[in-house]
Amino acid sequence: MNCWYTQSAKEDDIVISSRIRLARNLKNIPFPIKMDTNDFQKINETVKNAVKSSNTPYAKNLKFIYMKDVPQNERYAMVERHIISKEFASNCENKAIILSEDESISIMIGEEDHIRLQVLLPGLQIEKAYDIAESIDRLLCDTLDIAFDNRLGFLTECPTNLGTGLRASVMVHLPIIEGSGEIKILADSVNKIGFTVRGMYGEGSKPTASFYQISNQITLGISEKNAIDNLNIITKQIIEKERKNRESINRLKAEDICMRALGTLKYAKILDSSEMMKALSEIKLGLSIGVMDDERIMPIKLLVEGQPFMLMRKFGEMSPDERDVCRATMIREALS
Amino acid sequence: MNCWYTQSAKEDDIVISSRIRLARNLKNIPFPIKMDTNDFQKINETVKNAVKSSNTPYAKNLKFIYMKDVPQNERYAMVERHIISKEFASNCENKAIILSEDESISIMIGEEDHIRLQVLLPGLQIEKAYDIAESIDRLLCDTLDIAFDNRLGFLTECPTNLGTGLRASVMVHLPIIEGSGEIKILADSVNKIGFTVRGMYGEGSKPTASFYQISNQITLGISEKNAIDNLNIITKQIIEKERKNRESINRLKAEDICMRALGTLKYAKILDSSEMMKALSEIKLGLSIGVMDDERIMPIKLLVEGQPFMLMRKFGEMSPDERDVCRATMIREALS
Repeated sequence: MNCWYTQSAKEDDIVISSRIRLARNLKNIPFPIKMDTNDFQKINETVKNAVKSSNTPYAKNLKFIYMKDVPQNERYAMVERHIISKEFASNCENKAIILSEDESISIMIGEEDHIRLQVLLPGLQIEKAYDIAESIDRLLCDTLDIAFDNRLGFLTECPTNLGTGLRASVMVHLPIIEGSGEIKILADSVNKIGFTVRGMYGEGSKPTASFYQISNQITLGISEKNAIDNLNIITKQIIEKERKNRESINRLKAEDICMRALGTLKYAKILDSSEMMKALSEIKLGLSIGVMDDERIMPIKLLVEGQPFMLMRKFGEMSPDERDVCRATMIREALS
Repeated sequence: MNCWYTQSAKEDDIVISSRIRLARNLKNIPFPIKMDTNDFQKINETVKNAVKSSNTPYAKNLKFIYMKDVPQNERYAMVERHIISKEFASNCENKAIILSEDESISIMIGEEDHIRLQVLLPGLQIEKAYDIAESIDRLLCDTLDIAFDNRLGFLTECPTNLGTGLRASVMVHLPIIEGSGEIKILADSVNKIGFTVRGMYGEGSKPTASFYQISNQITLGISEKNAIDNLNIITKQIIEKERKNRESINRLKAEDICMRALGTLKYAKILDSSEMMKALSEIKLGLSIGVMDDERIMPIKLLVEGQPFMLMRKFGEMSPDERDVCRATMIREALS
């Protein structure tokens, strides 16, 4: 499967992925929190038919999945792949997903809003992700009775999404900005222009292994284009800053750190998720600045595949201790 | 050179080396602290001739070295190999050494006492070391006018050596006793019977990487045989305790620790002495309990060869930072 985390893309020395999410609701049907199974079936069928009967090129390879048919490990593995939200995985009653083969397009039905359309691409591709999302959104808006208010824009369950219903985000790798203690300064400055810096798994998640998610906060009184342009500008500034800072680091020390990380991953027999992520983050930096040179090592792929449910999806149910052994084995074999 | 640290020997899963040291002085010559160059020359010639003219089998391959002819790095490298004391290395005025080719026998002339005879062997070989020391001591006593008092025994500069002038010691590797916090109990109990537990480099040195030196404290009112028998008994008890404790450790965790140590040593680009020693200590344990199996890895050899002056002796003068890079390279190459 050629997912976002297995591909290389523009600016992916720093930008891991670009994500667009649009929140949409159908008129005259209660929000998911209040809807019943009939409501859900109605929404699901409506969206499904709209997508299927359209002639969007993306419709060809879409899978239509009821979440209750998805095993729990796979549901949480989808969260770890950033395909669905944790809330969507934890309760699969009245929930379905429309998913493209490469998982770049996902349409969650029955999340906080009736429809949560997501496009997720590797590297810095905010515009491209938006173009895809927009073309699917257009066909939905053309065919379905989407809740829209001329003054407010798209109506959503949570007022923070009202308006564009758009959340545009990038996941960035900022080890050197982080190391110099400048994340707080960065977060404060992007906050001032309506963006927020979060951990790898978005809202409520802590920063892990120098990965950060930057996303727009404002959905009301701003056009989609503006939000996306701003995120692009901010991201490019951050890329420039991180790259500039990387130029002045001690290359011998950086090589030492990333080679040690490789040594740990190649030899550990027990490896927890957080240590794996830290080591892969160090290796990613080493590869990016050229103190390590091995094209076969794909840190982001390993980082995703080494997540707890990604492991259990592949190797079966395990206790956390067994998982740490399994993770160490998987990583060792991948690097051998 | 087939030194103590390059050989395997009895019980060397725990006992690294056995050492006998005898302190002797010539009558009617001031102790080294007060002697002049004439005194030193007299002692040196006397001892040299006694050894040379003897028919001890050990005399054949002895080297006679003035310490002022030994470069500083090599002098301190001799300390790191446990051949001479730090004090002996730091000031080479009126100092000489008689050294066997394999460095198992060394006779320091002009240390604290006129003569400090040392026999150093790998593994648990206290009796053998004493037998060698005793046979050399006998020829010295037979030929030279050694300061001896019928009531007190051998006269020495420091009263703590009076009597037998004997210091018998073993260097032991006790990671599991140490890990369970039982070193203090061990030290207290051996103290009660006149022995002391110290760091790797004896008096005043801190324990490093789970290596400890155990030696007799009492030299007055006790026979050499008694001191040696007691050290043997204590050492065997410690071996038994450490081995028993090793049986109950989690082998997977132990394997993880020693494989990680190997990974670090195989990949680090910068490696300080203390981290190297810790990693080699972990590898030594792993090899001893069989969770790692590679006969080519010789942790004690690497541990000695990775010491600062051992490196500079081989690779030339270096700053501490350069040494850490050189050490990492040396260890990586040795393990590749």
